[in-house]
Amino acid sequence: MKPAIKSFVAPHRTLMGPGPSDVNPRILQALSQVTIGHLDPVFVDLMDEVKQLLQYAFQTNNALTMPVSAPGSAGMEAVFVNLIEPDDKVIVCQNGVFGGRMQQNVQRCGGQAIMVQDEWGSATDINKLEQTLKQHPDAKAVAFVHAETSTGVRNDAKTLCALAKQYECLTIVDAVTSLGGIELDVDGWHIDAIYSGTQKCLSCVPGLSPVSFSLNAIEVIKNRRSPVQSWFLDMDLVMGYWGQGTKRAYHHTAPVNSVYALHEALVILQEEGLESAWQRHAEMHDKLRDGLEKLGLRFVVKAESRLPQLNMVQIPEGVDDAAIRHRLLQEFNLEIGAGLGALAGKVWRIGLMGYGATQRNVDYCVDALSQVLK
Amino acid sequence: MKPAIKSFVAPHRTLMGPGPSDVNPRILQALSQVTIGHLDPVFVDLMDEVKQLLQYAFQTNNALTMPVSAPGSAGMEAVFVNLIEPDDKVIVCQNGVFGGRMQQNVQRCGGQAIMVQDEWGSATDINKLEQTLKQHPDAKAVAFVHAETSTGVRNDAKTLCALAKQYECLTIVDAVTSLGGIELDVDGWHIDAIYSGTQKCLSCVPGLSPVSFSLNAIEVIKNRRSPVQSWFLDMDLVMGYWGQGTKRAYHHTAPVNSVYALHEALVILQEEGLESAWQRHAEMHDKLRDGLEKLGLRFVVKAESRLPQLNMVQIPEGVDDAAIRHRLLQEFNLEIGAGLGALAGKVWRIGLMGYGATQRNVDYCVDALSQVLK
Repeated sequence: MKPAIKSFVAPHRTLMGPGPSDVNPRILQALSQVTIGHLDPVFVDLMDEVKQLLQYAFQTNNALTMPVSAPGSAGMEAVFVNLIEPDDKVIVCQNGVFGGRMQQNVQRCGGQAIMVQDEWGSATDINKLEQTLKQHPDAKAVAFVHAETSTGVRNDAKTLCALAKQYECLTIVDAVTSLGGIELDVDGWHIDAIYSGTQKCLSCVPGLSPVSFSLNAIEVIKNRRSPVQSWFLDMDLVMGYWGQGTKRAYHHTAPVNSVYALHEALVILQEEGLESAWQRHAEMHDKLRDGLEKLGLRFVVKAESRLPQLNMVQIPEGVDDAAIRHRLLQEFNLEIGAGLGALAGKVWRIGLMGYGATQRNVDYCVDALSQVLK
Repeated sequence: MKPAIKSFVAPHRTLMGPGPSDVNPRILQALSQVTIGHLDPVFVDLMDEVKQLLQYAFQTNNALTMPVSAPGSAGMEAVFVNLIEPDDKVIVCQNGVFGGRMQQNVQRCGGQAIMVQDEWGSATDINKLEQTLKQHPDAKAVAFVHAETSTGVRNDAKTLCALAKQYECLTIVDAVTSLGGIELDVDGWHIDAIYSGTQKCLSCVPGLSPVSFSLNAIEVIKNRRSPVQSWFLDMDLVMGYWGQGTKRAYHHTAPVNSVYALHEALVILQEEGLESAWQRHAEMHDKLRDGLEKLGLRFVVKAESRLPQLNMVQIPEGVDDAAIRHRLLQEFNLEIGAGLGALAGKVWRIGLMGYGATQRNVDYCVDALSQVLK
């Protein structure tokens, strides 16, 4: 039976949840340009620019830097399936949802995940990681989340990587919510494999996952004992298409228009400059914090490990979580994030990411909350 | 070092290669609407409409019908990693590139691929499949490509599935290039698992892969002995998000804007009607064939197994493949496809897909070829 469904008209929201964030209209414009072929020489040039722009954003010279043609979860999987083989030991630091997802990934590669657990809302404890490294001298890698989207915690990536390197481990970093929002220095911090998302502090549409692998990581991939279990995410095959030179082997059809959009998002980041973008996120966070605290809302995460781009506050006693978020969406077209996992119903997560990290959004959000919490 | 890269301006091509095909401007318009959250109730309603529209396009009542958030190759992988476990035997019919990719997928799941080989350019031989089914009574599934994009061959999906069912095998079908272009009847033909792409006869931007699984296939997934090796493509987890009801569990961030685009592409297909779309592809193919034959170009595939949407012709003696395609692109902004694998340099593949299957494109292509082949 033929359905009778009409064209979709999207409502205009203000996106202040955990992502997607408000997309810059320049990016939507870039996205909607006419599609060209994925092997068109013009597109190959665009791919090269995207790689160069991603190297800037990640602060790396890694040649193997490119967007995976799928969302951040696929970027995570790309990193694990290429680096981890059956029986490999990986130390995973968990203090939120996404550390748990890393554990899942290690296990599905046949690896063993050694967990370093910290409370959701606290940063990863360096001493715990060091103890675990001592107990497992045969660990192949240390994996952690730089910016835990589920809690708003910033883990100290620089120190965690330095420690892992002392024990000769590969370093695997989830930068889905950190890229473009807070300092991140892939080469300076000795990160071997990293993945991010487009829909957080890059303010691009969701759907791609920028990744980068160090020479060290490539060496590990080259010396695998077994084939990569995923054909789609096998970096050796992917690089036949995303690699150097003008000759590119067809692997899969690149999401051409999404690549246009990512390119524009990265051009915008380059125009602003990394340091200015980090600074803007920090400043807007301060303003939002002041506004929320004036409303009596309290932050869960200690000041020193708070992410500027993801603000987790306690829901006041007696306030109905779902009803408030429903009113914000219906009356203000404003989206804020719910709590995940054990934090569901207890917290809100307010995003200040990329194009949305502005005075206008800060004021709008504080004002809307003040009205619905009256 | 901060690069100095400028915004990208896409050239306006006419896409008559193996895909992406020319995108309907209505779809680009839908794509560029403001982004909303992937858990927004409005988006959840949109997802339900997309499922309904895909059920129409696939001609199925399968509840597990949805787009995988990545290109067709990931859709292929989603089907294999969910259905195939270590030591499973899968009979794979190959007569082009994509049958070979199926073999790769089976092997990376730890399964054994029993190959039924036919020449590239010929259809799969039903008798060969029957012999192989007799020799391997323990085969779990039969997999084949409905429309071989690498050669322009239509395999007789209805008959192949009926035969596989006689031997109690699951049927796995690649419909990347067939969906929307030629007859396809998932329920009527007893297809258990099918995947497609958005950028062929749906004329949408590349990046998503519609899939559908029968109740039979779901039963097989439920009774797996081992976890699905991919976290991102694990249908059990994905359905927590794409499943029934208003409550959706976060799995990954859906590529929101790409889903807008797919929705619009499917609304357009619904407006035209499946049968009319197939008819249009057939008619335009006839016109293109007449035009190409007048230029002295010869089809490789026999008339009875030719795909209307992918026309493979021999490159005439003494003609420089790359030079001609370069001139078409530079002088006419016209993309046609090169040969893949063993056919590289020997054939061209001319696509007539979706929005591009029009009199205008047929005439433009024949005229451009007549000029560059003079």
